[in-house]
Amino acid sequence: MFTFMPKEMKFFDLFDKQVSNLLDGAVLFSKIINEPAITRDNVDKMHDIEHIGDELNHNIVNTLNESFITPFDREDILALANNMDNVIDALHMITNRYYIYQLFTPGEEAKKFAFLIESSVRALKKAVTSLRSNKNMKETIKECVEINRLENLADEIRDEAITKLFKTPNPDPIMIIKHKELYEAEESVTDYCEHVANIVESILVKNN
Amino acid sequence: MFTFMPKEMKFFDLFDKQVSNLLDGAVLFSKIINEPAITRDNVDKMHDIEHIGDELNHNIVNTLNESFITPFDREDILALANNMDNVIDALHMITNRYYIYQLFTPGEEAKKFAFLIESSVRALKKAVTSLRSNKNMKETIKECVEINRLENLADEIRDEAITKLFKTPNPDPIMIIKHKELYEAEESVTDYCEHVANIVESILVKNN
Amino acid sequence: MFTFMPKEMKFFDLFDKQVSNLLDGAVLFSKIINEPAITRDNVDKMHDIEHIGDELNHNIVNTLNESFITPFDREDILALANNMDNVIDALHMITNRYYIYQLFTPGEEAKKFAFLIESSVRALKKAVTSLRSNKNMKETIKECVEINRLENLADEIRDEAITKLFKTPNPDPIMIIKHKELYEAEESVTDYCEHVANIVESILVKNN
Repeated sequence: MFTFMPKEMKFFDLFDKQVSNLLDGAVLFSKIINEPAITRDNVDKMHDIEHIGDELNHNIVNTLNESFITPFDREDILALANNMDNVIDALHMITNRYYIYQLFTPGEEAKKFAFLIESSVRALKKAVTSLRSNKNMKETIKECVEINRLENLADEIRDEAITKLFKTPNPDPIMIIKHKELYEAEESVTDYCEHVANIVESILVKNN
Repeated sequence: MFTFMPKEMKFFDLFDKQVSNLLDGAVLFSKIINEPAITRDNVDKMHDIEHIGDELNHNIVNTLNESFITPFDREDILALANNMDNVIDALHMITNRYYIYQLFTPGEEAKKFAFLIESSVRALKKAVTSLRSNKNMKETIKECVEINRLENLADEIRDEAITKLFKTPNPDPIMIIKHKELYEAEESVTDYCEHVANIVESILVKNN
Repeated sequence: MFTFMPKEMKFFDLFDKQVSNLLDGAVLFSKIINEPAITRDNVDKMHDIEHIGDELNHNIVNTLNESFITPFDREDILALANNMDNVIDALHMITNRYYIYQLFTPGEEAKKFAFLIESSVRALKKAVTSLRSNKNMKETIKECVEINRLENLADEIRDEAITKLFKTPNPDPIMIIKHKELYEAEESVTDYCEHVANIVESILVKNN
C-alpha cells in the first residue's frame, strides 16, 4: 500500500467536498420530485448547489495545474472532477427544465429516477471517499458494482417510460418533447455516476 | 519499424475481437433494416453484441491499467476502445428505438445508412487489424480515407432525409420526433467510425 | 518566463490561423442572422469556413504527432484544437439547419445569440493569440472572465427563449422542435468558447 503526502491530501479534501455536494444535489432532487409542487425557491437552491460544484471543480483543476505530485494519474483526477461536475450540472438542468416546461407535478417515472439517482450518489460518496484510505478495496468495488446495477435499472425505466409516452392514445407532441428530454436527462445522471465509478475502479487497479 | 513483445500482443488480440464484434453488429443492423419487419428476437441479438462489446471494452481498460508497457500511447488505446464502444452502443440504441417507437418497417433512408455503416465498419476492421503488423501503411491510410468519405456521404443523406421529413405536407410531429432522432443517430455511427480512423492515423504517424 | 523554439512556433501560427478562422465564422454568422433572408450562398460560405477549420485542425494534430517538443502539454494542445473545431462545426450546423428548416428570417433571439457569439469569439481571439508572447497575463485572464460572463448570458437567453416558445398560445410542435434545437445549439457555441478559455487559463497557470 501507499501513503500520501500532505499536499496530495488536498485532492481528497476537494473530492470529499464535491461528492458531498453531489449528495446535497441528489437529496434536494428527490425532495423536489416528491413534493406536491416544484417551486422557484427549490430551483434556486439547486442553482446554488450547482454553483458550489463549479467552484469546487475550478478548485480541483487549479490545484492540479499547480501540483507537481498528485495522488493518482492527472487524467484520472481530471476525469473524476469533470464527471462529478456533469452529475450536478444535469440535476440543475433537469430541475430548471421542469420549471420552464411548467411541469410542476412530476409523475411516477420521475420518482423512480430520483430514487435511483439518490441511491447511486450515496454509493458514489462511499466509493469516492474510500480513495483516501484505500483500506477497504473490496467494499469500494461493491459500491461500484451497485452503481452499475442502478444504471442498468435506469436504462430499463427510461425505455419503459418512453414506450408508454408514445403509446398514449392521441398523444400531445409537446408533452412528448418535454417528457422524452427529461427521461433521457434523468437516465444520463446515472451514466455520469457510472463514469465516476469506472474511474474509481481504474485508480484502484493502477495503484494496487 | 518496431516489433511488439508478447504482453503487448494482448492489446491487438482485444482490438481484433472488438472490431470483429463491431462488424457483427453492423451486419446484423443491415439485416434488421432490410428484413420485412424488426423483431424482438433481433433486438435481443443486438443487445447480446452490445454486451460482448462492453466486456471487451472493460477487458481493454483493465489490461491498460495493469500494463506498464503498451504498444501505443495510453490515451490512444483508451480513445480507440471508447470510440469502438460508441459504435456498438449507438447501433444497439438505434435498434432498440425502432422497436420502442414501433417503426417495424424502416424506410429507404435507413437502408442507405445501414449500407454506409456496414461499409465503414468493414474498412475499419481492415484499418484496426493492420495496426498489429503495420506492414502496409499505405493500404491502412486508404481505408481511413474511405471511412472519411463514407462519413461525408452520411452527412448528406442525413441532411436530405431531414429536409424531406420537414417538407412532407401536413407532417405528423410525432413521426418527425422519431425519424429525426434515428437519422441523426445513424449518421453519428459513421462519426464514431471516423474518430476510430483518425486515431489509427495518429498512431501510424507517431510510430513511423 | 519562457521562450519558445522555432519548431514550437508552428503551433502558435496554427492557433492564430484557427482562431482567426473562428472569427470569420462568427462574423459571417452575425451577418447571416441580421440580413433580411438566409441564402444558399451564405450557407456555402459557412461550409467553406468549416472546411478551412477542418484542415487547420488536422494540421495541428499532425504537427503534434510529429513533434517531440511542444510549447504546452500535449493534452492541452489537443483540447484547444478540438474545442476550437467544435465552435466552427456548431456554427456550420446551425446555419445549415436554418436553411433545411426553411427558417429564412431568424428572430430576435437569434440576433442576441449571434451578438454574444461574435463577442465571445473576439475575446477568444485575444486570449488565444496572447499565448505566444504571454506578456500580458492579466489582460488574458480578463478576456477569459469576459467569455465566462457571455456564456452565462447565453444560458439566460436560451432559458428565456425556450420558456417563451412553450408559452406561445396554440403552439406548433414542429416550430418548437426547430427553434428549441437552434436555441440550444446557439448556446452551446458559447460553451465551446468557454472550454477554450478554460484551457487557456490552465496553460497560463501551468507555465507561470
